[in-house]
Amino acid sequence: MQRSPSSDVLRGEPAALISFAEACSIVAAQADAIQAALTPEAANCELINALGRTLAVALVADRDQPPFPRVTRDGYAVRAKDLNPDLPLRVIGQVRAGESWAAENPPVAAGEALEIMTGAPLPPGADAVLMVEHAQETGSESGSDANGRVPLHRSVRPLPGRTLTPGENVVPEGSEARRGDILLEPGSRLGPEQVALAASCGFLSVPVYPKPNVAILATGDELVDASMHMDEIAAGPGEVPGAIRAHQIYDSNSHALAALVRQAGGTPLRQSPARDDLDDLAARIRKGLQAAPFLLLTGGVSMGKFDLVEEVLAGMGAEFFFIGVKMQPGKPVVFGRVPFDGDRPERYFFGLPGNPVSTMVTFRVFVEPLLAALAGDRSWQPNIAMAKLAADFQAKPGLTRFVPAHLDTSAALPTVAAVRTQGSGDLTANARANCYLIVPEDCDLLSANQMVRLLLR
Amino acid sequence: MQRSPSSDVLRGEPAALISFAEACSIVAAQADAIQAALTPEAANCELINALGRTLAVALVADRDQPPFPRVTRDGYAVRAKDLNPDLPLRVIGQVRAGESWAAENPPVAAGEALEIMTGAPLPPGADAVLMVEHAQETGSESGSDANGRVPLHRSVRPLPGRTLTPGENVVPEGSEARRGDILLEPGSRLGPEQVALAASCGFLSVPVYPKPNVAILATGDELVDASMHMDEIAAGPGEVPGAIRAHQIYDSNSHALAALVRQAGGTPLRQSPARDDLDDLAARIRKGLQAAPFLLLTGGVSMGKFDLVEEVLAGMGAEFFFIGVKMQPGKPVVFGRVPFDGDRPERYFFGLPGNPVSTMVTFRVFVEPLLAALAGDRSWQPNIAMAKLAADFQAKPGLTRFVPAHLDTSAALPTVAAVRTQGSGDLTANARANCYLIVPEDCDLLSANQMVRLLLR
Repeated sequence: MQRSPSSDVLRGEPAALISFAEACSIVAAQADAIQAALTPEAANCELINALGRTLAVALVADRDQPPFPRVTRDGYAVRAKDLNPDLPLRVIGQVRAGESWAAENPPVAAGEALEIMTGAPLPPGADAVLMVEHAQETGSESGSDANGRVPLHRSVRPLPGRTLTPGENVVPEGSEARRGDILLEPGSRLGPEQVALAASCGFLSVPVYPKPNVAILATGDELVDASMHMDEIAAGPGEVPGAIRAHQIYDSNSHALAALVRQAGGTPLRQSPARDDLDDLAARIRKGLQAAPFLLLTGGVSMGKFDLVEEVLAGMGAEFFFIGVKMQPGKPVVFGRVPFDGDRPERYFFGLPGNPVSTMVTFRVFVEPLLAALAGDRSWQPNIAMAKLAADFQAKPGLTRFVPAHLDTSAALPTVAAVRTQGSGDLTANARANCYLIVPEDCDLLSANQMVRLLLR
Repeated sequence: MQRSPSSDVLRGEPAALISFAEACSIVAAQADAIQAALTPEAANCELINALGRTLAVALVADRDQPPFPRVTRDGYAVRAKDLNPDLPLRVIGQVRAGESWAAENPPVAAGEALEIMTGAPLPPGADAVLMVEHAQETGSESGSDANGRVPLHRSVRPLPGRTLTPGENVVPEGSEARRGDILLEPGSRLGPEQVALAASCGFLSVPVYPKPNVAILATGDELVDASMHMDEIAAGPGEVPGAIRAHQIYDSNSHALAALVRQAGGTPLRQSPARDDLDDLAARIRKGLQAAPFLLLTGGVSMGKFDLVEEVLAGMGAEFFFIGVKMQPGKPVVFGRVPFDGDRPERYFFGLPGNPVSTMVTFRVFVEPLLAALAGDRSWQPNIAMAKLAADFQAKPGLTRFVPAHLDTSAALPTVAAVRTQGSGDLTANARANCYLIVPEDCDLLSANQMVRLLLR
């Protein structure tokens, strides 16, 4: 796997491109290696702030779940075999959710029923619940018992044709989990559903892994850092900032990467753009590596004379896992690691292509899994699903393609359409899209109405 | 649409259920009404913190995009018709990204080529770029021009068979957007791709709508607020807190809702659970309505004698849009609005079912679009896509079903499998799932390998 870019690669000769699938495998192998070596400090985090974080320990059931045979319908706790439309059952009392019949009363006996609410424990003696919608109560509601809240002289029978099997409308004690069971493995990403589970075990905070720091460095002489132009921008939207020159562009990639890193659960550390100059670039790369175990560069990885990123990294002793992938956009993407200050493990880096759409696509497919591994997340998988294609899409085989596209989920079948774009520099088209249509490497046509794969955002 | 629950509805008679599609339409109509009446204050927000927020004004192009004819490949700017393998073109200089040829030099003339880098402006005279991979340079690199950086006596010719059409490898000036064009409409949700576009226009901050406050109130006598048990919990994971009683459960729904609200771009305001008591419930509901224009309740909306939520809200003059939907889980879900302190507009509320999975599913399908509307987001659509079903799934027709399921995206085709669950109280199964399989109302069988719809998380 160890491979250093030759000067041929750096100077105008096409690099040996690997397939998209091969690149994914290489990243996955490094992510696994990171996971295996990970010994981060865990910190306790309040539940609401744990959203999007990664659980650092196993979540263990504090008791059986449910902790009692839980009634799932409002109705009458009965012995299922007693049910008979011609023989009313005597209603002997009532149990609300949050109450327990067992403590002070005898079990439900033959010929008896207990009015019961969803969420209450099934009382001893009963084995099922007759839903209130399937029952007919008869008899007087006058009078009450000693504590004044249970009506006397009531009876209930099933509506004609309604029968009951033992266990119906009851979730058995411990059927969801047993006390001591592992409910969530360490490395689980905490979404609302996982937060809910932790709360149900009584946890108000959970130990999570720290957010990984990610250094971000855009490169290119054409890039202008908008923060240098605050005064002009304060003039308002649509104003032409005075200081930018016609052949310059604002750096957008470092902002895109900061947003992507934050969305993926990392802490972005953004520098101003570096110039296409060996010394400036080397200094900025060192600064980035000092700040974070993971460095994202954009630009400077293509075949131009001033694409210096690989040269600087090679000079620092970098190991390159790949230096080009058969994909579009994103072909010149570079992945590797580099020693820094004698630290172990070495620091990972990506050299992402400078075209903005390329930067964002390569982040989503390659950077995300590595960042997830650094965050301790063992559940990461590509954010891919399918939809119906709205119209024929012609492609040139040879590269796996990611085409900015719009998914419409309001139709009976979710339907996706490629967005008109001027290419991988077209930020406007990409911002109007909401996903990427994936065109396989060997494909020359995706047909209207066929099911296609999407990279979701 | 105005409909108040009758005492029949409150006391044991099944409510008139509407279809899931009808419920979605009702919510969408209210979301539209909210959007139409929305006049929130916009606040300027630093770009990185604008992630997930909603743009409050149109994003307008500060200049043409690209601002110059942008070269998309490293190579040679030429006149396409000059290209001839037998007639080398004289290399007259070099333009890097961030430089401009036009300012100090004559246009590229017949028989000439200009070495050029990706991202640079195409010089006047040239109409296309010959990729460096398709070119062969000949001649001496010795010597340089007056400013010491352009080698003299060089020439370039295309590799055999390589031709060029005008415009090739160049994105025309203004082809992505014209100065003054609206790039993003007000009401666009800002993901990384939209943040990138704003940055490319030189914006370091953008006006966004405020995050809507959402009051959250779980109800039920069986619920224990874990924050009352901090000491026990400090004992560590897996410990049984001493103070909870066997027939009680920890409130998890308010935590689930807080996480869901935050994930959807709102600010959750969570109260401790309310008891199944008219006075306590009414006081808590008033407190919630005071704090926020939107109130989420869970529990207390089913058919039990102590499901008091509708009764309290009806007593406050609530208008109910629906009080039951043909779906599972989530059937007893209630949606409406209620006058408060004479305020206009009235405050919206949902009474979500208390079973935890019901709470989360009804949030994702009904609460999210309303919350999006309050956040000014005009781009919301249900988070639905498709995948291949792993195994036959039997269903009972009559209700639209949402089944906790696991989507595996690592296979060639994303594949989904229902997760074994004990029902809509089974938080453990739901936390191990990563999506919901959608079973249409009229469906009794989904077959293995068929494409099915998923509600993604």
